Amino acid sequence: MRDHDVVGIGNAIVDIIVRSDDAFLVQQGCSKGSMRLVDQAAIAALYAAAGPGIEISGGSAANTMVGVASFGARAGFIGRVADDTFGEVFGHDIRAAGVTFTTSPTANSEPTGRCLVLVTPDGQRTMNTFLGVSPQFAAADIDAELIASARILYLEGYLFDRPQAKAAFRRAAAIASGAGRKVALSLSDPFCVDRHRSELREFARTSTDILFANEAEILALYQTTSFDAAARSAARDCELAALTRSEKGSLVLSGGQSLQVSPAPVGRLVDTTGAGDLYAAGFLFGIAAGAGPQRAGELGSLAAAEVIGHLGARPEVRLAELARAKGLLS
Amino acid sequence: MRDHDVVGIGNAIVDIIVRSDDAFLVQQGCSKGSMRLVDQAAIAALYAAAGPGIEISGGSAANTMVGVASFGARAGFIGRVADDTFGEVFGHDIRAAGVTFTTSPTANSEPTGRCLVLVTPDGQRTMNTFLGVSPQFAAADIDAELIASARILYLEGYLFDRPQAKAAFRRAAAIASGAGRKVALSLSDPFCVDRHRSELREFARTSTDILFANEAEILALYQTTSFDAAARSAARDCELAALTRSEKGSLVLSGGQSLQVSPAPVGRLVDTTGAGDLYAAGFLFGIAAGAGPQRAGELGSLAAAEVIGHLGARPEVRLAELARAKGLLS
Repeated sequence: MRDHDVVGIGNAIVDIIVRSDDAFLVQQGCSKGSMRLVDQAAIAALYAAAGPGIEISGGSAANTMVGVASFGARAGFIGRVADDTFGEVFGHDIRAAGVTFTTSPTANSEPTGRCLVLVTPDGQRTMNTFLGVSPQFAAADIDAELIASARILYLEGYLFDRPQAKAAFRRAAAIASGAGRKVALSLSDPFCVDRHRSELREFARTSTDILFANEAEILALYQTTSFDAAARSAARDCELAALTRSEKGSLVLSGGQSLQVSPAPVGRLVDTTGAGDLYAAGFLFGIAAGAGPQRAGELGSLAAAEVIGHLGARPEVRLAELARAKGLLS
Repeated sequence: MRDHDVVGIGNAIVDIIVRSDDAFLVQQGCSKGSMRLVDQAAIAALYAAAGPGIEISGGSAANTMVGVASFGARAGFIGRVADDTFGEVFGHDIRAAGVTFTTSPTANSEPTGRCLVLVTPDGQRTMNTFLGVSPQFAAADIDAELIASARILYLEGYLFDRPQAKAAFRRAAAIASGAGRKVALSLSDPFCVDRHRSELREFARTSTDILFANEAEILALYQTTSFDAAARSAARDCELAALTRSEKGSLVLSGGQSLQVSPAPVGRLVDTTGAGDLYAAGFLFGIAAGAGPQRAGELGSLAAAEVIGHLGARPEVRLAELARAKGLLS
């Protein structure tokens, strides 16, 4: 097994991106900017009502691993697809992006997970996810050798939505810790945090070295309305925390320090899908490459700015070249 | 049956768009800028070697019908998909764009057709098409009522690549002519013209009212190296002909007149896929709406310019609004 810099575990999802307006969100009962879980019948009904789409591979941790690889680091992904067309598309796209992906597809089961992403003219994304087969991996599916080979294990909070996946998540964290590796956690979504607050808080405190959250998520985790109070709690619980605040940039908490990181300039905001995923990619790449926390945050900002300038949650350019052009990478 | 302005018949295809470089085209034996037919094994091998993709519904005549609907006219499409994921995606996207599409999917057969579109940094597209189930519609599948209801029947030359589809094509033209409707033909691709020159020339002469071709296609049809000679032949064979010449605009031949149409300004050329399809959309919309041939050509230029400014062969904005903003539509 070739050593990896970062290995991610998450839901393997193909995004169906549809341009929408606010009225459609209201009509369909969507909460703008959030992710909701829907069943197969609900996503079919929503799809039937929605406009023409574009299919692009997605999945939060998968997007992050594609970003890490795009920076030139060695990334791996563990997640489940079905033996169907979207599974083939997902597997092709992540491998073609240079990410190690060996989880075998499941046959004769639920379909590959998909997310109907409604993008409004203001660039906001509202997600409706049918998980399909994606949470159907168990602790036994965890590739211990792959995880032990990587400097950092990256886990998406969305996995807490299914008990079986959560068990795999915990086993992976134990393997990484046992091998002296770092464990990183992304909180994924404020509603996901609400659903699993006590377990996620416990996991952040006891098992997480690097925590990623946006403002809404970190407030939800610590049940507070004060960002400063939430940041103090995060700094107490984790060695390193990166809190993203959209156009306000991010706050990186490291060894008692509070570092403000500016956002990178964005040409035209087209689609915020993947902003957090790609911030995490730049940050994890930076840490794995030995950069300090401030520089890691700047790499995160750069990757987030790239991905929100076009449809879809995966970079359209080589992030390593972009980072070199901006003087963030030699 | 609600009356339609234009009904198109063509291969129902989902495009898999992959950014590529010239070296990859050479390595894979692709002839830059053209379309080649490949079998299932060949497209799988090519896909495995290619980079990450984006899936967007395509198909030449289907793109044209989506464009016609985007201008606000009533469009219909006849074409075959399989009862699979790409078939579902194709059917959703074309209906969501407002096009009547009632051809039933075929079960237990070949998969839905797909085209691996390799887009190079200069915006050129090189297409590798696995037709799958798409040519499997026969004369019996032709919806005579739908065709007779439409002012214009639009046929893509690619259909000549399969005998069964060609028979359906001829039957559709006979129905349209019998109902006093106009028949439009697009030559699709110079290699397609080479494969079926005598039949296409005969069809243009005897059964075509409106002919669409680009420069390479019209030269191939009349086996000449002189564009002027080819244009004279087209003017002799068809009542109306629109010959597109990329950045040189188009030449519209109508009732003994030769009208030069300027290209519409393009911001950044991203992907030429669909330029001809959308030119045809604007032109057909114009003619169906009672515009003169010059204005029809201008509407064609406008739609072509929109579609080459982004990935994929379907418009990202409402063409009716764009045309109004440019003063081409009241």
